[in-house]
Amino acid sequence: MQLRPTLDFLLYDWLGAESLNQRPRFADHSRETFDAVFDICEKIAREKYAPFNRLVDTQEPHFDGEKVTLPQATHDAQKAYAASGMLSAAQDYEMGGMQLPYTVEASANAFFAMASVSIGSGMLTTGNANLLMVHGSETQKEVFAKNEFSGRFSGTMCLSEPQAGSSLSDVITRAVPDGDDFESDLLGARYRLSGNKMWISSGEHELTENIIHLVLAKIPGPDGKLIAGTRGISLFIVPKKLVDIEGKLTGVRNDVALAGLNHKLGWRGTTNTLLNFGEGKYPVDGKAGAIGYLVGQPHQGLRCMFHMMNEARIGVGMAATMLGMAGYYASLDYAKNRPQGRLMGVGGKDASRPQVRIIEHADVKRMLLAQKSYCEGALALELYCAKLVDEQHTGQAKAADDARLLLEVLTPIAKSWPSEWCLEANSLAIQVHGGYGYTRDFPVEQYWRDNRLNMIHEGTHGIQGLDLLGRKVLMEEGRGLLLLADRMQATVLRAAQTAELAQHGEQLAKALAHLQSATQAAWSTGETGPALANAVPYLQGFGHTVLAWIWLDVALATKAAIDAKSAAHSGAFLTGKLGAAAYFYQYELPKTAAWLRVVETREMTCADFPEESF
Amino acid sequence: MQLRPTLDFLLYDWLGAESLNQRPRFADHSRETFDAVFDICEKIAREKYAPFNRLVDTQEPHFDGEKVTLPQATHDAQKAYAASGMLSAAQDYEMGGMQLPYTVEASANAFFAMASVSIGSGMLTTGNANLLMVHGSETQKEVFAKNEFSGRFSGTMCLSEPQAGSSLSDVITRAVPDGDDFESDLLGARYRLSGNKMWISSGEHELTENIIHLVLAKIPGPDGKLIAGTRGISLFIVPKKLVDIEGKLTGVRNDVALAGLNHKLGWRGTTNTLLNFGEGKYPVDGKAGAIGYLVGQPHQGLRCMFHMMNEARIGVGMAATMLGMAGYYASLDYAKNRPQGRLMGVGGKDASRPQVRIIEHADVKRMLLAQKSYCEGALALELYCAKLVDEQHTGQAKAADDARLLLEVLTPIAKSWPSEWCLEANSLAIQVHGGYGYTRDFPVEQYWRDNRLNMIHEGTHGIQGLDLLGRKVLMEEGRGLLLLADRMQATVLRAAQTAELAQHGEQLAKALAHLQSATQAAWSTGETGPALANAVPYLQGFGHTVLAWIWLDVALATKAAIDAKSAAHSGAFLTGKLGAAAYFYQYELPKTAAWLRVVETREMTCADFPEESF
Repeated sequence: MQLRPTLDFLLYDWLGAESLNQRPRFADHSRETFDAVFDICEKIAREKYAPFNRLVDTQEPHFDGEKVTLPQATHDAQKAYAASGMLSAAQDYEMGGMQLPYTVEASANAFFAMASVSIGSGMLTTGNANLLMVHGSETQKEVFAKNEFSGRFSGTMCLSEPQAGSSLSDVITRAVPDGDDFESDLLGARYRLSGNKMWISSGEHELTENIIHLVLAKIPGPDGKLIAGTRGISLFIVPKKLVDIEGKLTGVRNDVALAGLNHKLGWRGTTNTLLNFGEGKYPVDGKAGAIGYLVGQPHQGLRCMFHMMNEARIGVGMAATMLGMAGYYASLDYAKNRPQGRLMGVGGKDASRPQVRIIEHADVKRMLLAQKSYCEGALALELYCAKLVDEQHTGQAKAADDARLLLEVLTPIAKSWPSEWCLEANSLAIQVHGGYGYTRDFPVEQYWRDNRLNMIHEGTHGIQGLDLLGRKVLMEEGRGLLLLADRMQATVLRAAQTAELAQHGEQLAKALAHLQSATQAAWSTGETGPALANAVPYLQGFGHTVLAWIWLDVALATKAAIDAKSAAHSGAFLTGKLGAAAYFYQYELPKTAAWLRVVETREMTCADFPEESF
Repeated sequence: MQLRPTLDFLLYDWLGAESLNQRPRFADHSRETFDAVFDICEKIAREKYAPFNRLVDTQEPHFDGEKVTLPQATHDAQKAYAASGMLSAAQDYEMGGMQLPYTVEASANAFFAMASVSIGSGMLTTGNANLLMVHGSETQKEVFAKNEFSGRFSGTMCLSEPQAGSSLSDVITRAVPDGDDFESDLLGARYRLSGNKMWISSGEHELTENIIHLVLAKIPGPDGKLIAGTRGISLFIVPKKLVDIEGKLTGVRNDVALAGLNHKLGWRGTTNTLLNFGEGKYPVDGKAGAIGYLVGQPHQGLRCMFHMMNEARIGVGMAATMLGMAGYYASLDYAKNRPQGRLMGVGGKDASRPQVRIIEHADVKRMLLAQKSYCEGALALELYCAKLVDEQHTGQAKAADDARLLLEVLTPIAKSWPSEWCLEANSLAIQVHGGYGYTRDFPVEQYWRDNRLNMIHEGTHGIQGLDLLGRKVLMEEGRGLLLLADRMQATVLRAAQTAELAQHGEQLAKALAHLQSATQAAWSTGETGPALANAVPYLQGFGHTVLAWIWLDVALATKAAIDAKSAAHSGAFLTGKLGAAAYFYQYELPKTAAWLRVVETREMTCADFPEESF
């Protein structure tokens, strides 16, 4: 794989991730231990994931009415993943973890996302268990989280319902106390849940001994009615199979039934399900209703769930990035080996000369460089955000708080930008292959299909846009955007001191100023409708500005490595980083103006368009 | 279908296609006969195509070693199509045709492309037969073309080879005279062909009695060697089964063998094949070598083939457009019926109120209006180009010549722009559906997969870019671009006389000036490399400028209909056209600057990027 040098450069040369071991929590670690984790993950991904990526696409999960069958390769891959200890990589030693920085955990997981995103590693299981580590009781941690970290159990997140996709306030899954002694259950206050949950990834399978569903549901008020809105939502642990206080299966199946598998465009190695809770297919003690144990306080479910949202969204951004990267490497390899046509120019078309490899054509180079610029830029952004997570958790108070706030502002970009542009990279990877790219004999069409999911799940583009312009740039009196602007300006200042990058810096400063004025203009009348009517173009303009900043910052690190005559990376490698940055400034950043234009004029052409005129 | 009012408006109100019946060739026609054709095609498309679009996606063509099996629905659909007379719609009455204008033929075919692009209508068969009508002998017309027009035979175009995709100068299929009397065959000078042809659509099937391959091959020189480059290429008729002078099958199978089917990302209802010519699987008279009959003069094959290129490329553009349109209508329907979330603003989030339908959300409207603007704009462009074809064939000398030249310049846009932007429309159609759009329970994911082909076949985006900037805007001393600029300026002048559209006109005039200066700047040093290094961004910037012009012109026709208080179209309908035009000017045209920027600076970041730095 060609990923490693770039990952090394970004992590160590650019982000200085090695220095994380100066913090007490990571004191046992060093670049050597980080690298050892990467070595293992790279190997498992190469041996257990990549060879089966097409297989899991063609052998979709199959439901026979009782069990969901997945290819043996998926079992093998997930076993190897669990055995590597990656499920608990970031956990305390006492929980069986390695106390790795999140930055390193996220980097290591990138190998799996690139090799086969839909075989899946453990994002949901880890996220589920992490949530319990924060909001669960000691018993819940021991019984559920610990068994998820070990790979014995797996986890899901059950939010959406058929009538309430992105609109969680409309959740109607109901949780009622199970018996008079419901509060005395050692696993947590015991409820009976009933309702349907849609789009549940890994909702049913035989990969693990048990599946731990984390379910949002509403506890009815004294009048038996559900509280409207998100306020009424609580969070429950609903195991597929009931367990005792030691985590052993009791032999009783909980009342959770698979209603159907979703048949998808891509990402087919992962089951995606509609689950019926409490319909009575598997009655417990003779009664319908899925047993669920309350997590945290009643009516605080959404707050608990959102605790995990930033990391989940970085996870989606990273998945999108690595799908893009996989396509980039595949098309680069193809372009280096496929002869076709001749170079333009005097005598160039002379057909008696041999054909050139297509990588010699300017437009093929453009398509490769665009991919490189999108995907390596996105990777840098995700790693930057991952490091903010570590900073938030282990930094000094001020730095930790800044990291928290920056992360709030950057998360919608970390989620949305790679979903859009690394998908575009996948399309370019197909294009480089020509007709061959359109066939299933090459991997790029699958990457493109798989990647199309990322603009949809974990909050659509539309929702990211509203989150960014409607919430994140406003919160704490706009301090998040100011903080980000400060960081960008610091990069601009450093660039100004170089001959090579000063011009990029000027371009970035202008883009930033435009972004800030557009933000102000959007809200200048204080009306929500016009302010948010163009939230997605805002997201796009914001995203390209952030990526330009990331690339300039990476370019400065590259220049430093060149000036230091560092032996760690070849001249060609470093030149490539500068070229990818230059591509972004020449070809991409200028697109920003068109997106911000409609934001600053509070353009209402779309919002006011009459329905009957479509 | 909601297509008809828009098609009517563009054809009659905007293009004045009705007046074509003032030309002698179309004198028997009227709006009534045109509409009757649309009625029939709309009905066949609705009954025989649309219901089976998913079926042909899942039941791919199957090859058992002898025969290729296609679903019965494909047989039924193609029979109904042939029975409608559409295969020969534009032909002379003497050939059994209807002497319909090409504009009407292309419009009628749009219904099939929207209903099921991959069941296919008859684009290749018609194109094949049309070519023979121009370059074939009288016997070839009678024996081959006539039977293709009747639907008894179908046709293919065999250009690409495995080692020569877009690079036709590298074709190595060989044609040698078949016996001393080879020139006396009544079907045309008889050759034996040997070689492999790749990406041949409908290359093997049982839909028709026979398949007529038009094959590019090289006749060796006296030294037995093939002439290098495209000069040596000749064109041959190679029937799958040999026929006599009356077109009857002789019972002898020609030496053309299916080497394999391509398994594609989409467009799966159409077989796509690798064909072996003359490998000896089906020897004729005991000898290997596929029998082929020369069409036109030796070494003029490419010229003959390119005769059909403009219409084929308009056909691809139309297919891309109609796939986009299909997704637009599907997502519009979904958005009107799916309740989800609440409107923003004061009290809007009050969850006790019922959810709104998603079409009420500004961002959903934006995604629908973008689709409308892309797809209806693309349709207008294709119809404009189709009318140029009629103008070229039946107009007065000066008008015909102008139409020819304009068509040369516009064809790369007609082919590339819908392939890119109606694909984007399909992606937005998925996005409007949310998670449901990612499942195979809804049609939009298939449209997106099907549409991805259009940037590849019939000349990739890269090739369209080179054709446009390297050839079309230069030919005849740049007169083509001047002609187009004149038409655009005429539209700008008319817009200047209105209060509502004058501002769009100013924007267009600026974009045009930018396009012209960028074109000059690209070629200002006379060096081919830097001039063409950014041919694709040029194609994109050119395309958006052309579409802005088309939309402004359509908006002027809309305004005229409003001013005339025309009863033919509702106020809501006409408002919709103005809104879609406004969308294009507010959201799309401003993107042009970023693409043209790299063209005018002859940016070499990509072209100069060292291979080892990727």
